Amino acid sequence: MFKAPEHQVAGHLASDGKLGPLVDDSGRFYKPLQSDGRGSKELAFYETFSSDTRVPDNIRRFFPVFYGSQLLEASNGSGLCLHLVLQDIVSGRTNPSIMDVKIGSRTWYPGASDDYIKKCLDKDGRTTTVSLGFRIAGLQLYEGEESGFWKPGRKEVQSFTVDNVRSVLRRFVSSSSSIGNEKPDCSFAPSIYGGSAGILEQLLELKAWFEDQTIYHFHSCSLLILFDKESVLKGSTPVAEIKLIDFAHVLEGKGVIDHNFLGGLCSLIKFVSDVLSDSKESSITANVESEKPHVCTSNGNCV
Amino acid sequence: MFKAPEHQVAGHLASDGKLGPLVDDSGRFYKPLQSDGRGSKELAFYETFSSDTRVPDNIRRFFPVFYGSQLLEASNGSGLCLHLVLQDIVSGRTNPSIMDVKIGSRTWYPGASDDYIKKCLDKDGRTTTVSLGFRIAGLQLYEGEESGFWKPGRKEVQSFTVDNVRSVLRRFVSSSSSIGNEKPDCSFAPSIYGGSAGILEQLLELKAWFEDQTIYHFHSCSLLILFDKESVLKGSTPVAEIKLIDFAHVLEGKGVIDHNFLGGLCSLIKFVSDVLSDSKESSITANVESEKPHVCTSNGNCV
Repeated sequence: MFKAPEHQVAGHLASDGKLGPLVDDSGRFYKPLQSDGRGSKELAFYETFSSDTRVPDNIRRFFPVFYGSQLLEASNGSGLCLHLVLQDIVSGRTNPSIMDVKIGSRTWYPGASDDYIKKCLDKDGRTTTVSLGFRIAGLQLYEGEESGFWKPGRKEVQSFTVDNVRSVLRRFVSSSSSIGNEKPDCSFAPSIYGGSAGILEQLLELKAWFEDQTIYHFHSCSLLILFDKESVLKGSTPVAEIKLIDFAHVLEGKGVIDHNFLGGLCSLIKFVSDVLSDSKESSITANVESEKPHVCTSNGNCV
Repeated sequence: MFKAPEHQVAGHLASDGKLGPLVDDSGRFYKPLQSDGRGSKELAFYETFSSDTRVPDNIRRFFPVFYGSQLLEASNGSGLCLHLVLQDIVSGRTNPSIMDVKIGSRTWYPGASDDYIKKCLDKDGRTTTVSLGFRIAGLQLYEGEESGFWKPGRKEVQSFTVDNVRSVLRRFVSSSSSIGNEKPDCSFAPSIYGGSAGILEQLLELKAWFEDQTIYHFHSCSLLILFDKESVLKGSTPVAEIKLIDFAHVLEGKGVIDHNFLGGLCSLIKFVSDVLSDSKESSITANVESEKPHVCTSNGNCV
């Protein structure tokens, strides 16, 4: 009944025989409580958050549904362990493309130990966290029936530069045939990043909340971007969505906005919106080029 | 002809016989080039920025006008030194209230030396820089003819907590008579922070630019908020304005927004807008209370 999730892109994997999350057939995701008190802090967050009436519904949909906690046989055989029971956000999707983006220009939080802060500072500087205000923590990208998924390893993802991130955000919404090219075509950008229900609009909705909310500070939390390339290819309306996950380091906001999360979110928004504008421009260029036979020169000769 | 500025709230003071800025009668501000290459970096910034056609006019007005550089007798008698020649932004104002707010949740910049980063990290953690995304670096607040200015010393300003900052932002726009009270009245908030030409609108205009501009990253830069309480008291339209200063650590944006500055700016905006809403609410409460004689209880007795 329980199995390792098929589409996990970051974190510990139960499939390696380690302690990791499990899923069932009913669309639920079981996440073992992490050590060092992180697990109980995450459980406490979900319990508080799920009954927090200050969080509006349009924002609540960006969080996995929380069903409580449950004792389960752990994936590494270490016996009965407490698991968070959450919505499995990829349930029902076939071949989802997923990107896990850790938001914020620092992943440490005030009050953490000096060692922990140092460890985070080091990693934040080595990745794009400091420079971009976010880093890609994992991804899988469906490229079609033949080539399957592009799912770079942890080390490769951790070594992504600013240019790599820009390029991955383009590749994420490009047609498979263009991916080998120097410049992927971003042909899915208008339907995935753009549109009234697209990724950009959702990010902007989240941003508006973060400009005002002073309830929670989300340290070292990830934003998942996911969609189903196959449904785009089949011409059906693609459902692109964002979800926030990983709440082991959420602290009280105490009347101050989460400027660390907000700054990083704005940076991600700018990157996504740049890909979208580029794709619109190149489709205009393409249209002009396809209309070339009708273009006439000033002396009346048509080419 | 040259003298020490009367209304400087942060930085080195020429009036202490140290190397500091000077002003003249024609509305110009002379800032000696700082040591360690910071001065030449700031000069280079002003030279680039002043001819940068990518910066729109509505944003350019938030920066002091740059008139070039000039050799001048230094204020500490150390001979002829190169000075930046800038607009004296308090020229023409009588008794201006000024707040110097250093923006960003980190004041260090990528590429700085380990020692410098450590020094900044320490100070950022001791002040509100990490928690708020900004810190007050200095201020003077005109309280009226009798009491003159409230201008807390450097040490006091550096020890401001989050609650102190909230309270200073209220006190900044309160009537002198209310300042001794537990809760200053914020009676100038609607005319200084609010309104279509007020501080909040200017901050929002600056924010809109920072959401999009990827040209410059403003590390350790200050935002001055200034206005003239006397003109409010005299009933004339107060000119409240914001100006950015201190550009020794501006780096190229390289296609990435300045998420560090933007996050801090959004945090400041939230604080200012909270003071403004509070002041509106309390003026509604005051109105309701003054109408008390007309309030009737459910049994028909009027109080």
